[in-house]
Amino acid sequence: MKPPPQTRIVRELPKLVPFVGPEAQERVRGRPFKARLGANESLFGPSPRAVRVMADAAADNWKYSDPENHDLRQGLARHHGVDADNVVIGEGIDGLLGLAVKIAAEPGAVVVTSDGAYPTFNFHVAAQGAELVKVPFRDDREDHDALLAAVQQRNAAVLYLSNPNNPMGSWWPAAQIERLIAALPDGVLLLLDEAYCDTAPADAIPPLDMANAQVLRLRTFSKAYGLAGARIGYALGERDLIATFDKVRNHYGINRIGQLGALAALLDQPYLTEAVGKIGRARERIADIARSNGLAPLASAANFVTIDCGRDGAFARLVLDELLARDVFVRKPGVAPLDRCIRVSCGRDEDLAFFADALPEALAAARNGHPQK
Amino acid sequence: MKPPPQTRIVRELPKLVPFVGPEAQERVRGRPFKARLGANESLFGPSPRAVRVMADAAADNWKYSDPENHDLRQGLARHHGVDADNVVIGEGIDGLLGLAVKIAAEPGAVVVTSDGAYPTFNFHVAAQGAELVKVPFRDDREDHDALLAAVQQRNAAVLYLSNPNNPMGSWWPAAQIERLIAALPDGVLLLLDEAYCDTAPADAIPPLDMANAQVLRLRTFSKAYGLAGARIGYALGERDLIATFDKVRNHYGINRIGQLGALAALLDQPYLTEAVGKIGRARERIADIARSNGLAPLASAANFVTIDCGRDGAFARLVLDELLARDVFVRKPGVAPLDRCIRVSCGRDEDLAFFADALPEALAAARNGHPQK
Repeated sequence: MKPPPQTRIVRELPKLVPFVGPEAQERVRGRPFKARLGANESLFGPSPRAVRVMADAAADNWKYSDPENHDLRQGLARHHGVDADNVVIGEGIDGLLGLAVKIAAEPGAVVVTSDGAYPTFNFHVAAQGAELVKVPFRDDREDHDALLAAVQQRNAAVLYLSNPNNPMGSWWPAAQIERLIAALPDGVLLLLDEAYCDTAPADAIPPLDMANAQVLRLRTFSKAYGLAGARIGYALGERDLIATFDKVRNHYGINRIGQLGALAALLDQPYLTEAVGKIGRARERIADIARSNGLAPLASAANFVTIDCGRDGAFARLVLDELLARDVFVRKPGVAPLDRCIRVSCGRDEDLAFFADALPEALAAARNGHPQK
Repeated sequence: MKPPPQTRIVRELPKLVPFVGPEAQERVRGRPFKARLGANESLFGPSPRAVRVMADAAADNWKYSDPENHDLRQGLARHHGVDADNVVIGEGIDGLLGLAVKIAAEPGAVVVTSDGAYPTFNFHVAAQGAELVKVPFRDDREDHDALLAAVQQRNAAVLYLSNPNNPMGSWWPAAQIERLIAALPDGVLLLLDEAYCDTAPADAIPPLDMANAQVLRLRTFSKAYGLAGARIGYALGERDLIATFDKVRNHYGINRIGQLGALAALLDQPYLTEAVGKIGRARERIADIARSNGLAPLASAANFVTIDCGRDGAFARLVLDELLARDVFVRKPGVAPLDRCIRVSCGRDEDLAFFADALPEALAAARNGHPQK
């Protein structure tokens, strides 16, 4: 009896997980968080109509979901003014990123992203055995010129870009994104992660162009729609590119309740508008809390606000740890110079009140543990 | 603007989907089925406790699920008398089969299965660029000796085996499975698909041996537990093998309601016992219906009965089509000589009454369209 060998790529992968969840932290701490503001979920919850649909679907969960996701794709096609053949559903944007890399990047191919951008993407690139090239942020935004230069110099297969951006909340206007798209070398696939598009200014999101097979637009029900637990993401793109996903996706991978809940949430646009309004007000409240503690909130187009703690990454880490110790779950960017910040998700008044109470103490404790140099 | 190239493996993949769902058939037909007996779902539904837990979880679906699946893994570990490190959760057995192939089979490696066995496995093998070697069934069961011979001759990396078997419902006693395990060449990974273990005779399922890193036991909540829509499968195996899945799985791929519902279903073993009893009685009823129509039901350890229609695959195809035309959704094996059969999932009395009514007409119509040679 000898254990089976692993493939070369898998053998060489580090044992890293993209994100440790708040539940794991709660298990270590031995008590729950009182404010869950670290995962960019929507504490305003999903549409009550979607809740009703999902609750009603529980008894029918003995049925497999429709593997073609027909009704949800039709709904999304109508909503976006595209064809259902331009839409593929996945287990969150995460699942679709993995498939996109599998489709477009040979092992050994170069994939370009920004240093400090979404780590789950990097995880999927590693699992494909592709080479990840990281371009630094510039002024807390992705540096389009440097990204394009890296793509050209390294003959990259795939470029990842998020707009609005996580973890900084920054964004580029649509015109700038369109310039980047126009400048893409032939054959490069742009994965444009628009998880936070619903909370962005209208002029940040380029119109959909389903004729351009070089651009995949990635969207989700996890953020403004308030359905992170449902694991329903989708990609919009040119029909041949979208059809390719059918060659590799887990056709029966989508859960039935999430499939139905996402459609119900999509059809309740008044609720989305209301939720986006609440998210906007929560952004202002978080920024106020930051300023009243002498910290600098970054402008945000997402459902979170990233706060510059004013010193280095070690200090921001202390602030974060002190907030966690006060039962406030938040996260922070991991790569310098972004790591001077903490990232606080939008929440209800009561969640943010908890954060407002904890922040002065956390800052004082952090300053105590990390005297100004 | 030039479309991005696809990887060689993806480019060469056929545009095949593992299964067309009943919903797609209903859309083509323009009307719903009246008996849904084709997907080996449990028409008896999940535990009412699980239904309550899932319905109650709808409002909290704004939260991501715990990416470690901690509580469900602990529950499964207790249930099976193993350690939580021996358990990995996936988006159904389908998702886990894809990951297992990615872990153990280099592109170009040989993977052995039975001809006519679970097609989604073959789909994943193709997507990995591995070579699939198919061994014929023998007497409507997997041919262990021939499978082992193929593994040895072709120096295979992976062997797939289901017990009980889909699509025939046949099974081998545990002692025979253990003989096959003992005879596995060093380094070969056996994927032992036990989706139907809950409805099998106790002596068909070998005891768990978590020390053997060559065997992965695949289980699901989709069959006897009645939670196909939840997409919760799991694998039991040696801890280093299980840990490898963390290198490649979609950590946030599991939906929260399904995760909670599966645990609630697991904890309601009395309901499972009741459901298994109903499934057993439904098997007998399906066999009676077959016999009273002059057809031969195969003995089944699964939640379906495969019925020998007594002629060739073309005739069984006609019988199937006539049943579909009479609003009874069933499926059939696709590979000769298994394809002489149709496969009918267990259902409630009212579902099987519908099948009992439709079968004589369907047979008559099929015989009309396909005179005895």
